[in-house]
Amino acid sequence: MERHTGAVDYQYLLDEAMSAARRSAGVGRVADYIPALARADPDAFGIALATVDGELYGAGAWTQPFSVQSISKLFTLALVLADGEQGIWERVGREPSGNPFNSLVQLETERGIPRNPFINAGAIVVTDKLLSLTGDAAGAVRAFLRTEADNPLVRTDPEVAASEAGHGHRNAALAHFIASHGNLVNPVEEVLAEYYAHCAIEASCRDLALAGRFLARHGLRADGSRLLSRSDAKRVNGVLLTCGTYDRGGEFAYRVGLPGKSGVGGGVLAMIPGRAAVCAWSPGLDAAGNSVGAVAALDAFTTLSGLSVF
Amino acid sequence: MERHTGAVDYQYLLDEAMSAARRSAGVGRVADYIPALARADPDAFGIALATVDGELYGAGAWTQPFSVQSISKLFTLALVLADGEQGIWERVGREPSGNPFNSLVQLETERGIPRNPFINAGAIVVTDKLLSLTGDAAGAVRAFLRTEADNPLVRTDPEVAASEAGHGHRNAALAHFIASHGNLVNPVEEVLAEYYAHCAIEASCRDLALAGRFLARHGLRADGSRLLSRSDAKRVNGVLLTCGTYDRGGEFAYRVGLPGKSGVGGGVLAMIPGRAAVCAWSPGLDAAGNSVGAVAALDAFTTLSGLSVF
Amino acid sequence: MERHTGAVDYQYLLDEAMSAARRSAGVGRVADYIPALARADPDAFGIALATVDGELYGAGAWTQPFSVQSISKLFTLALVLADGEQGIWERVGREPSGNPFNSLVQLETERGIPRNPFINAGAIVVTDKLLSLTGDAAGAVRAFLRTEADNPLVRTDPEVAASEAGHGHRNAALAHFIASHGNLVNPVEEVLAEYYAHCAIEASCRDLALAGRFLARHGLRADGSRLLSRSDAKRVNGVLLTCGTYDRGGEFAYRVGLPGKSGVGGGVLAMIPGRAAVCAWSPGLDAAGNSVGAVAALDAFTTLSGLSVF
Amino acid sequence: MERHTGAVDYQYLLDEAMSAARRSAGVGRVADYIPALARADPDAFGIALATVDGELYGAGAWTQPFSVQSISKLFTLALVLADGEQGIWERVGREPSGNPFNSLVQLETERGIPRNPFINAGAIVVTDKLLSLTGDAAGAVRAFLRTEADNPLVRTDPEVAASEAGHGHRNAALAHFIASHGNLVNPVEEVLAEYYAHCAIEASCRDLALAGRFLARHGLRADGSRLLSRSDAKRVNGVLLTCGTYDRGGEFAYRVGLPGKSGVGGGVLAMIPGRAAVCAWSPGLDAAGNSVGAVAALDAFTTLSGLSVF
Repeated sequence: MERHTGAVDYQYLLDEAMSAARRSAGVGRVADYIPALARADPDAFGIALATVDGELYGAGAWTQPFSVQSISKLFTLALVLADGEQGIWERVGREPSGNPFNSLVQLETERGIPRNPFINAGAIVVTDKLLSLTGDAAGAVRAFLRTEADNPLVRTDPEVAASEAGHGHRNAALAHFIASHGNLVNPVEEVLAEYYAHCAIEASCRDLALAGRFLARHGLRADGSRLLSRSDAKRVNGVLLTCGTYDRGGEFAYRVGLPGKSGVGGGVLAMIPGRAAVCAWSPGLDAAGNSVGAVAALDAFTTLSGLSVF
Repeated sequence: MERHTGAVDYQYLLDEAMSAARRSAGVGRVADYIPALARADPDAFGIALATVDGELYGAGAWTQPFSVQSISKLFTLALVLADGEQGIWERVGREPSGNPFNSLVQLETERGIPRNPFINAGAIVVTDKLLSLTGDAAGAVRAFLRTEADNPLVRTDPEVAASEAGHGHRNAALAHFIASHGNLVNPVEEVLAEYYAHCAIEASCRDLALAGRFLARHGLRADGSRLLSRSDAKRVNGVLLTCGTYDRGGEFAYRVGLPGKSGVGGGVLAMIPGRAAVCAWSPGLDAAGNSVGAVAALDAFTTLSGLSVF
Repeated sequence: MERHTGAVDYQYLLDEAMSAARRSAGVGRVADYIPALARADPDAFGIALATVDGELYGAGAWTQPFSVQSISKLFTLALVLADGEQGIWERVGREPSGNPFNSLVQLETERGIPRNPFINAGAIVVTDKLLSLTGDAAGAVRAFLRTEADNPLVRTDPEVAASEAGHGHRNAALAHFIASHGNLVNPVEEVLAEYYAHCAIEASCRDLALAGRFLARHGLRADGSRLLSRSDAKRVNGVLLTCGTYDRGGEFAYRVGLPGKSGVGGGVLAMIPGRAAVCAWSPGLDAAGNSVGAVAALDAFTTLSGLSVF
Repeated sequence: MERHTGAVDYQYLLDEAMSAARRSAGVGRVADYIPALARADPDAFGIALATVDGELYGAGAWTQPFSVQSISKLFTLALVLADGEQGIWERVGREPSGNPFNSLVQLETERGIPRNPFINAGAIVVTDKLLSLTGDAAGAVRAFLRTEADNPLVRTDPEVAASEAGHGHRNAALAHFIASHGNLVNPVEEVLAEYYAHCAIEASCRDLALAGRFLARHGLRADGSRLLSRSDAKRVNGVLLTCGTYDRGGEFAYRVGLPGKSGVGGGVLAMIPGRAAVCAWSPGLDAAGNSVGAVAALDAFTTLSGLSVF
């Protein structure tokens, strides 16, 4: 990375990135596997950036809440690791899967140990652990987001959670399969309910950039307390870069060059280690489930600023 | 990444990293699928670092040549891209494979398009392209290494190349399979000969750190001329981070946090973008084919220095 | 097949087959994934044969009930086909799977259409259909067995059914996965309950030989009424021969040479088309889930008698 | 099987079967991966039947030679087994593959042991063994066909053999992969040359029915000498039924109900154990590589005659 001296004009960068990305956003397809997500406005677009020093920038619909979906997996993992739970790495791996996010094939080959914490199977295992630790996995994620974003309105959308459960045969298959290998502690139904509840959290680009900032700050929360060790923060960034964007981790590293996590609600939360967290949102998705517009915005952002990790 | 001000004592870091890593190196297993590699001294250990500003540091056997093996794949890719050959990305992907480096399964599923340029199948396709461009793929790699390292002694070990060919049924299977899908231009036998010849190049940690430095310099060669565009250099680093260490890319990102390429000769070449290239060597390998000692040395180096990209 | 003229001494053949097979039965392992099955006596051994002409022969514990398990899949299929339901072949295939009986991999590759009706996934789909047709799939199977065997005591063991449900994460995964592809009509929980209920039916070698005889009689039931068309009966025999013994269909064809269906309760029911149905039972299983003793008995029977279809 | 007493009018059955099948033959597609096969007349149709008692019947182009292709695999297996080589079963399995005939996936999973002797990988291993036994695998097959069919004109078409070699990257990949697991004794190139040479044999329906008759005769050759033990003959029939028609073994068992072997030249050779061998030929293939017309003819034949093994 270049040594950037002097001030970076983040507001200019966000405006330019959004402007450049809006053109491509239209080719994406809004997730429609549940009605509550299908209603998202395909033209919505927002981007926000929170620096390690406490500055906050935004453009477009950056304060509008959307369904965070898989972005919540980043927070469940961090909260489990925050509890000193290195044992989670015996129940879930750290390698890219090379397969779609909800594939059963690899899970079968590898005897119930999901490839990484960001595919659905892995997130179900992490949720199971967080449920054991807290008794309320989704509540723990909500509480963390509310505190870091200083926004008590962050909430789970009950309609989305219910819809996911109603369309969740694939996730139920994953959870039962993991359970058949003895890799779930809590009952399948309870784990899935928690999983759907944290995926159905609504938050804005602003909220997510603020809440994700601890990774850019090498593990420090907004109040200066330590959530993760410096080493764990580095490591979570590593897993994000290789596994955070479904089976397009290589493409994302190639184009954007930042650790990041995407969700089918259209959000992508990325880290510029030592500098800032940035979150872009646009509901149209590519075939892998990543937001076309949000990835394009982050691509433009790093190209303009030179702020990739490479 | 931290903003490092003031001088970093690279010599101290290399000495400490090597000292820390030597303890773990013994558990590795020297590659023994061909006699010429099996003769490597399991206790050999070297590490070298070349800064973007022209400084050079080393410790242990850092000037002793060893078989670069898959590290050569980084140079074949760069030389093809240097020729403006973006078309290579239609013949090979950029995603981690999630499978061992010489797996046929994925290749079959994906109809002859290898997952990335650093698994054997992908490197065979890149070699085919470099052969078309230059008429002498291995010669082009050797010439590049000699020039960048200012070392005319860099050469192909003919015994290793012949041994590889003699034990190369797996690679021959990959190449014929790719050819069956129309993704090889040159005859299978010629492509394999070039492939074996560049894998059998002998170079030292010093040579490789110098030759790989162009990626830390965002595409600039030793003489200041541009090999890759800034954008391509960033992108190659992205592919290295996700795909450079066989099916342990996630583990490497998690532990070391640098883009890197390993070879079964025991070398690992890694990039600190904007700062330096560093190469460690220790012949003992883990089950995935990565050097136990070299990875441990890079792990210690980034832990001590904080110089990971995360 | 040889043209056998004159009487075959079936009693002699059964005695000899049982005697020959007893020696090998000890190497098998009683199914122990649920306690109710694990209690089976490993030394139990029975064999029965029912000719198309109404003769009945038996040896050993041929009237002792055991858990029929997957042998029930033969009857669910026949009862669905008896209803003229050729449409079932759009929801389940007729090819050997080449994989263990409860594999998810193939199901994923083939988008929720199980490979054949005798692997668990396929039997779940057939059960779903039989449930739609009758409102009580397990009851329909029980009723058929009772009538054909003239034995009102054939019943579902409720402890086995409950145990299966309690240990059934793998089957639940299969069922949810099939449902995610839209290939289940009834609720997952109901289908699984029916599935467990018909697998938990207890019947003896005698009962099963009598109940399976309709396939040897080219579709005619004990009372002379037609259950299946001659063509369907032939076809079910074909599917049995290729798919009836988990992923050892080739081995069974090679050794025994008769269409047959095995269950993890230790039973194997086989057909000598135009002549007889024969059922052997010994609880010890091989790694694929087929009874070692029962297969050995059928092997000896066909070797002694020359009564294979080949 | 029914006990058929009295004479069966085979000529009538062949005429009717051919007439019924001609209608469907047109939907098939002539193999076009090599020019020499692509030239086959799509309207050609022949069928022949040779009884165990020495009678011979035919209809249509039943004496016209065509490329036997994979049907030769039946003869290579028989000739290896005739040499008492039960050891072949340690190098190749007997289970259906559940995958297309030239799949590499299963071969990789199962470490170089092909699933059965009738997929390409398995036939390459059997050819390797026959080459070790005879020094001339293709010559041994030709000699057997000539003798059994009493037709010295049976020969290898050199153009077809050369074309196969020129388009054989997939088979070369299979052979090298098998060799990489140590499951080939002779050099890859020699084994492939023999493999192509016996696949390129030209013979007619008449020749093949006569040459295959030994399996209907439980192992006895035309001259009454024993080629296979009764037990081995039965077993080869079992493997044919489950594995003889690529990944449509279940469909073939379901429709035709006879052990059979197909080839992409459009021929299918089937056995009526104890009665006759029957060979049909029509060049148009289905997606799995089986002749549409030949399978339809055999389907009609067994439906009309009731002469299936079920």
